[in-house]
Amino acid sequence: MLQTLRQDFVPTLPSIFSDLSRVSFRAVPSVLQPKSHIVERFPLSFQPHFFEGFLAHKTERRPLKVGVVFSGGQASGGHNVITGLFDALKLLNPRSLLLGFLGGPSGIISGTYRELQAEELKSFRNQGGFDLIGSGRTKIESEEHLQASLSVALKLQLDGLVIIGGDDSNTNAAALAEFFLKQGCSTQVIGVPKTIDGDLKNPYVATSFGFDTACKVYAEMIGNIERDALSAKKYYHFIRLMGRSASHIALECALQTHPNLTLIGEEIAAHQKSLKQITQEIVDLICARAEKGKQHGVILFPEGLIEFIPEVSSLIKELNGHLNHSQLSLSEVQQKLSPQSQACFQQLPEAIQRQLLLTRDPHGNVQVSFIETERLFMEMVTTELAKKGKSISIVPHFFGYEGRAGFPSNFDCHYCYALGFTSAAILSAGLTGCMCAIQKLHLPPQQWQVGAVPLTLLMDLEFRKGKEKPVIKKALVDLQGKAFSQFSEKRELWKFEDHYVFPGPIQFYGDPSLSERTLYSIQFDQ
Amino acid sequence: MLQTLRQDFVPTLPSIFSDLSRVSFRAVPSVLQPKSHIVERFPLSFQPHFFEGFLAHKTERRPLKVGVVFSGGQASGGHNVITGLFDALKLLNPRSLLLGFLGGPSGIISGTYRELQAEELKSFRNQGGFDLIGSGRTKIESEEHLQASLSVALKLQLDGLVIIGGDDSNTNAAALAEFFLKQGCSTQVIGVPKTIDGDLKNPYVATSFGFDTACKVYAEMIGNIERDALSAKKYYHFIRLMGRSASHIALECALQTHPNLTLIGEEIAAHQKSLKQITQEIVDLICARAEKGKQHGVILFPEGLIEFIPEVSSLIKELNGHLNHSQLSLSEVQQKLSPQSQACFQQLPEAIQRQLLLTRDPHGNVQVSFIETERLFMEMVTTELAKKGKSISIVPHFFGYEGRAGFPSNFDCHYCYALGFTSAAILSAGLTGCMCAIQKLHLPPQQWQVGAVPLTLLMDLEFRKGKEKPVIKKALVDLQGKAFSQFSEKRELWKFEDHYVFPGPIQFYGDPSLSERTLYSIQFDQ
Repeated sequence: MLQTLRQDFVPTLPSIFSDLSRVSFRAVPSVLQPKSHIVERFPLSFQPHFFEGFLAHKTERRPLKVGVVFSGGQASGGHNVITGLFDALKLLNPRSLLLGFLGGPSGIISGTYRELQAEELKSFRNQGGFDLIGSGRTKIESEEHLQASLSVALKLQLDGLVIIGGDDSNTNAAALAEFFLKQGCSTQVIGVPKTIDGDLKNPYVATSFGFDTACKVYAEMIGNIERDALSAKKYYHFIRLMGRSASHIALECALQTHPNLTLIGEEIAAHQKSLKQITQEIVDLICARAEKGKQHGVILFPEGLIEFIPEVSSLIKELNGHLNHSQLSLSEVQQKLSPQSQACFQQLPEAIQRQLLLTRDPHGNVQVSFIETERLFMEMVTTELAKKGKSISIVPHFFGYEGRAGFPSNFDCHYCYALGFTSAAILSAGLTGCMCAIQKLHLPPQQWQVGAVPLTLLMDLEFRKGKEKPVIKKALVDLQGKAFSQFSEKRELWKFEDHYVFPGPIQFYGDPSLSERTLYSIQFDQ
Repeated sequence: MLQTLRQDFVPTLPSIFSDLSRVSFRAVPSVLQPKSHIVERFPLSFQPHFFEGFLAHKTERRPLKVGVVFSGGQASGGHNVITGLFDALKLLNPRSLLLGFLGGPSGIISGTYRELQAEELKSFRNQGGFDLIGSGRTKIESEEHLQASLSVALKLQLDGLVIIGGDDSNTNAAALAEFFLKQGCSTQVIGVPKTIDGDLKNPYVATSFGFDTACKVYAEMIGNIERDALSAKKYYHFIRLMGRSASHIALECALQTHPNLTLIGEEIAAHQKSLKQITQEIVDLICARAEKGKQHGVILFPEGLIEFIPEVSSLIKELNGHLNHSQLSLSEVQQKLSPQSQACFQQLPEAIQRQLLLTRDPHGNVQVSFIETERLFMEMVTTELAKKGKSISIVPHFFGYEGRAGFPSNFDCHYCYALGFTSAAILSAGLTGCMCAIQKLHLPPQQWQVGAVPLTLLMDLEFRKGKEKPVIKKALVDLQGKAFSQFSEKRELWKFEDHYVFPGPIQFYGDPSLSERTLYSIQFDQ
């Protein structure tokens, strides 16, 4: 059974960790420019350097008491960050303790935790999910939450707190690190880059963990569907892929599977395309393929696509404004829309109109991830084709949750275990307000280089809810980057030739070209 | 890359095939009783015995010219049936030829084919899909089609025709075998049991090919979603599984993954449950779990479920009647429904009403596989919960196409390659109107026993479109069988304890307990 067999898998560590008690960090010049408005806001935790791991003299390490927490949605490999952290802490000093905060950041605020033990961790080694300690979406942002976290850190006498999360959670980790310093609390705060979306990315962090596994799970399914389409020859498959705003997952899956068309949100925004234009492009492709006798095809839609379509983006902003700040009825909301947004709203299929008006998050905002974009285009394309007296069979799909908590790929097993070791080493070296940064991920794990990048070096000011806020910005797909260039060179070929690739299920054993397969986005970034 | 690496995988054959030119078949008493009304209708091809493969004296085999066709939906392993058939034919006599009919049975009728060559077959070894020669749903049933097939068989001087298909295709294969004999045509017709649905099953055929791979692909996804549910703790996942009428796939996936609830169509029919009752059971489970503090869960719905709910089944029958035989408008159709069916129709969510009225096959029948049962129950459960002032987040899923054409599991690779060898051996032995029957599938492939079961022994009379027709009936889930008993013993435990199992992705290499994992339905049937 895979569950038990995977427990015995031993991830490969970067060679520096073969002598953990010699690992130290030294400041080297950073390729990132310090921003003065960030420096001002983080006077105590700001650091202008990158910290590079190196082998120093062996030093005795004192026992550490460390807390760890999962923040936000699942990403495969999270359990390995914890086992790596645990193993490294115990190696550095067997009297070290690791506390797991339960149910996400709210566990920190309320001081709900459990001490993690070697025995319990056994069955979570190399397993998917976050179920060891759970996760949650509470954000430690308010003064009240910061104070509560401080009390818990002081009460538990924590030496360190490791926050495993995405861009927002790491942003909040930076604020917490600064707050602790300001209050004279010695608890160091370290961030670990987690998110399947791939949008937590910078010159020092080529990818967040979980992205590899999610893309490979989705690519397995897309490949299977491509093979089915090619065999049945009578269906178009419209596949929406999870991944929030950025289109990284769609791009990586496209490079892995060569579908006939992949919409990239960032490109659509750059070209200011309208719903109608996109629909027309799909219709044109379908008609051109039909002329070649092809009644089948596969098209990928990133989850965040509609936010990148200018008219829909404006509509959503207006809806958020109206829905958020008033007790208006839905028909009143519609009437309050600007003429442009009314026009945009009117052309949407009824089911999507309903989703826009009814699926709201606790703040009253439209939940973009609940909008079924694949069905939106299915209806719009069907209608346009009907005008030409044509029809095709479209099958809608959404791949999301099945990619967040599966067994981590070998890459994510290695990477996360190394992230756990790295966070222990950073804590032991006395740094705070840093994110674990492992470089050279395109090489075998032994050759990875470990480091720590100050969270403040990753931050910019952004307008959020009308205020300037220092945040780690989501990294969007770089239209000048190598991954997008490769894709854009090849895609014309994929449109008409069925140049499908079938990656198949993630392999954990056998030929390294399968079991250690490196993502294109990681290879190309080098 | 898996595509190329899998090409070199060598399936293990039953030991009898180590000396193919000695393989012969002998008649042994059958456990199936001949039925007189079938005997009468198949006077020439009927045979009362089972044919067991055995090693006789080595004999020179003459070259054979054989046609092969895929009929119906994709099932993983189909290409291995063809490569097995090809390799065996060439082993028996290098001058043998294999013709692939293109695009399904319509390729036979129109005589559209391609001679298959060793070089071309290389890249299809151990690959998913049916794209080598395509497939189709045309049925060779009418006198006209039988005649056309006869002309092609005579013109091509075919010694044999291998039809790779499900229950209907094998039924038609029996009629074709009888027709050929009646017309003095010597083309032998052999059926190969194909369908992911698992409903082509009898005392000699424990499973059709493709069922293993499909269940494992779905179980991977279900396991991933269970782990996500257990981590996020805030979603109910309503998952519909492909598989047509019978609930074999849902049952096997339940045994592999232990979801909180799995609806089995056959059981619902046996207990004459109404839509309302089923909804209530789901609501009760959700409320009982909520009392234990659990806001998450996973529920499986077989695709054919609604056909087993008596009131919905009656409604569909009435709709088929009205839609089929008239040019009535949709509102007129509704008015024509019986009071019971009107009541049933009224309680359905609007989107499902629309699906029932608008999604019709070419014969005007409701297409049950297009009804989104998971969304039907999502709406009904949400409404019932709202009446109690409660709410939960439900995420709907449909797993279907991604399980039909993926890389065949090692089991399906072995099984299909052996089915190809078996059909060649049966043809070489001069039998016709038989289905390949490989027994002892729970043992390693070397120990499998090969045989041929006369298609006529598998047939019964069934009323179809008002006429008695001899058919191979779909095998439904046996509520007295071992697989269902195991499930029904355990399911109470699975309801409240989250006893989830995470099977993970299909493994092709490494520990045999993973790469050669046997399905529960195959194990239990022994």
